[in-house]
Amino acid sequence: MMRRTTPPYKSPASDPFSSTHISLSLSLSLSLVQGKQVESVLLGLLSAMDIEAVAQEGRSRPLAQGLSWLVTCLMKCRDKVVDLGKSIKKLGQDDPRRVIHSLKVGLALTLVSLIYYVRPFYDSYGIAGMWAVLTVTVVFEFTVGATLSKGLNRGFATFSAGALGVGAQHLACLFGEEGEPIVLGVLVFLLAGAATFTRFFPRIKARYDYGILIFILTFSMVTVSGYRVEKLLELAHQRLSTIIIGGATCIILSIFLCPVWAGEDLHKLIVQHLEKLAIFMEGFGSEYFQSANEDKAVISTGEKIFLLGYKSILTSKNMEESLANFARWEPGHGRFRFRHPYKQYLKIGALIRQCAYRIEALNGYLNSDLQAPPAFKKRIQEPCMKITSESSKALTMLASAIKLMTDPSLASLHLHNSKIAVDNLKILLKTTSLEDTELLSVVPAATVASILIQVVQWVEEIYEAVN
Amino acid sequence: MMRRTTPPYKSPASDPFSSTHISLSLSLSLSLVQGKQVESVLLGLLSAMDIEAVAQEGRSRPLAQGLSWLVTCLMKCRDKVVDLGKSIKKLGQDDPRRVIHSLKVGLALTLVSLIYYVRPFYDSYGIAGMWAVLTVTVVFEFTVGATLSKGLNRGFATFSAGALGVGAQHLACLFGEEGEPIVLGVLVFLLAGAATFTRFFPRIKARYDYGILIFILTFSMVTVSGYRVEKLLELAHQRLSTIIIGGATCIILSIFLCPVWAGEDLHKLIVQHLEKLAIFMEGFGSEYFQSANEDKAVISTGEKIFLLGYKSILTSKNMEESLANFARWEPGHGRFRFRHPYKQYLKIGALIRQCAYRIEALNGYLNSDLQAPPAFKKRIQEPCMKITSESSKALTMLASAIKLMTDPSLASLHLHNSKIAVDNLKILLKTTSLEDTELLSVVPAATVASILIQVVQWVEEIYEAVN
Repeated sequence: MMRRTTPPYKSPASDPFSSTHISLSLSLSLSLVQGKQVESVLLGLLSAMDIEAVAQEGRSRPLAQGLSWLVTCLMKCRDKVVDLGKSIKKLGQDDPRRVIHSLKVGLALTLVSLIYYVRPFYDSYGIAGMWAVLTVTVVFEFTVGATLSKGLNRGFATFSAGALGVGAQHLACLFGEEGEPIVLGVLVFLLAGAATFTRFFPRIKARYDYGILIFILTFSMVTVSGYRVEKLLELAHQRLSTIIIGGATCIILSIFLCPVWAGEDLHKLIVQHLEKLAIFMEGFGSEYFQSANEDKAVISTGEKIFLLGYKSILTSKNMEESLANFARWEPGHGRFRFRHPYKQYLKIGALIRQCAYRIEALNGYLNSDLQAPPAFKKRIQEPCMKITSESSKALTMLASAIKLMTDPSLASLHLHNSKIAVDNLKILLKTTSLEDTELLSVVPAATVASILIQVVQWVEEIYEAVN
Repeated sequence: MMRRTTPPYKSPASDPFSSTHISLSLSLSLSLVQGKQVESVLLGLLSAMDIEAVAQEGRSRPLAQGLSWLVTCLMKCRDKVVDLGKSIKKLGQDDPRRVIHSLKVGLALTLVSLIYYVRPFYDSYGIAGMWAVLTVTVVFEFTVGATLSKGLNRGFATFSAGALGVGAQHLACLFGEEGEPIVLGVLVFLLAGAATFTRFFPRIKARYDYGILIFILTFSMVTVSGYRVEKLLELAHQRLSTIIIGGATCIILSIFLCPVWAGEDLHKLIVQHLEKLAIFMEGFGSEYFQSANEDKAVISTGEKIFLLGYKSILTSKNMEESLANFARWEPGHGRFRFRHPYKQYLKIGALIRQCAYRIEALNGYLNSDLQAPPAFKKRIQEPCMKITSESSKALTMLASAIKLMTDPSLASLHLHNSKIAVDNLKILLKTTSLEDTELLSVVPAATVASILIQVVQWVEEIYEAVN
């Protein structure tokens, strides 16, 4: 609409240079309003300016070049800002809990700031109140489990290291004024070294890494500062109580204000993975055999990308493990009334990954140059399609059974069907004679069939694990 | 040696009960010295005690039961301590740099403690010296890259957030005594929320997560504490300079004292992965075709486990990415004179993983129940064995070329050989007639051949990426 009110750029040769300049800045401000459309106008303008500059025999060339550079820069900037805006919007839309989490962190920090602002709090805690701020910043994580894990680790580590530090302090006192710093130095060296070494144990690293870090930190700080600060116990008490305030704020906010449960996320992740496998299996059948019957609608590129959703499963192990580690700390919630069966989820996740490895191999044959002769493909098409569709249905059923926490036995029918299809395929392969075709040409299709049989075996394993 | 001096346990029936008790505690103390051997003696003693207790018509039964329980507990404890000792030793032996790192952390902490112990330092920094201790604990990581990343992130974040915090403080002052805490609260809420949200961007999370955390922390602490503490700038200066002292200690120690370079680790990891692929390919050929010629030596279980080394490649993506992220921060070192080509390493790593997925599918056929008829297996054995051995050699060459940073063209010969073997295999499959065998029975072997052909394609891709 606004574009119509701008001067006719298409014939800039009739304008004097100064007016071009004015319309340039006008169009620049417009470009921020109208976006991409104006860009082409600007580029047209620039080329027109070039022509004009040549006509003016290079006199105003530097100016035009400078302007051109400026416009390019501004356009790049605008593009970057727009891209950034889009990615921020996408990030928020993909998972609105991210926005909520950010607001929660802001809220928690504002709440603990009250320790400073409110006189009675400040009088009793003083500068130690900053430990509450520090705790909130460091402890507040996205999921409840992670927050609990960090908060509890921090609390216990501070308490035990504080107690040990006070003990070390008393021990060092026995060695007199001169010996004290040496003994403390040796103790810090030994304890920090030993504690750092324990962080290399994979199991300890997964669960208590943060706790050990805080343990080293607190122990060093208590022993070291104790050498100067006389009111050691008071300091320890202040630090511990402010950490408890900060930690409790985080834990309460994370549990009671739009909680994000790691256990639930793990649950959803497993369901998603099963669904992705199902989508691939469903799509693979029609995609692979489409060339055999040309009358069928060809799958679009968009759908092909959709099929490849399973690729994220291949590298999901770390994500599953960290979610399970956090779920371990969470109390019963939602439909997980008592404890979250995270170990079972990990097991199912590993089986799903095994299945995904086979599917990755299968995918290699989808766009292979070497395709089996249509006649052979058509021969094995029926049982293969049956296998893909039935195992896809079984996987979908399993996904919804896990999702709704219902009995997965509905999937058994489809699993049974797919196993019958496997038997049919085997019979078919047994009776097929290769009189008129070479063995080499049927190898890809035979491989596909063979991997499909393997996939069914893995689906059965998943079914048993879910049961 | 010591065991011979103990009383003859084998005939405890002749001993009075009290002497059994004494020898029991004796043998317990011995068990800590002699380990497993004594265990059987103890068990024998216990059963003898049981017999004796029955003979005494149940009078001293509770005592014997209590003793039995105690011995079991102690034995379990001893086993656990021994296991722990073994796993500590193994952890240290697997990578002695872990021990060195632990000692380095201890040393760094002891060094920064000097700020407290040495009078002139203490006078100028006071209690703020604890920030140095805190920085060392939090920043000192295993690799140079991680330490640099954390140290620089912490330094820049503290500086920028400190400056911004002082600015916010001045802004809030304009709103008078009453308005100040409200303005500060709103600013903390907004900034903490926005900064927390940016942590969800995957790229920012990978590189600057810690920096943003420290940014939120410092900004909140400066604005909040500024409300009470008048000497704000002095505090900021003290905090910044102690953080610089702590950070510099970590960085200097990590670079100049037995440095662990993330770039070098990534380099070694990629080499290891190539070697693992080569080991599998080498072993697979003889393992799969062993049933075809029974005269060949069967591979032992130990070697079979060795073959499965490639499994760790399947889930190595996160490790490679984090090492690459750390390598990004590292200055030129070792044979990487200018910059570490971490992007190239990531690319090769991804190709290696693709190869490993195929190998995982291949591995499924190693112990499959469905084996091809020996005649057919024998027919395709020669080219298949050639493919596995030549691609294994090519992979080994590539690994050593990366390891020694030499020209990888030596591998091209083996790659060429394996491609010739693929062609031979194809010709063989073309000319094979299946008169006397069913198609079904040759499907597994045909699948193996087909996947082997795929593997060669991936090895070629790896070769090109290394070049």
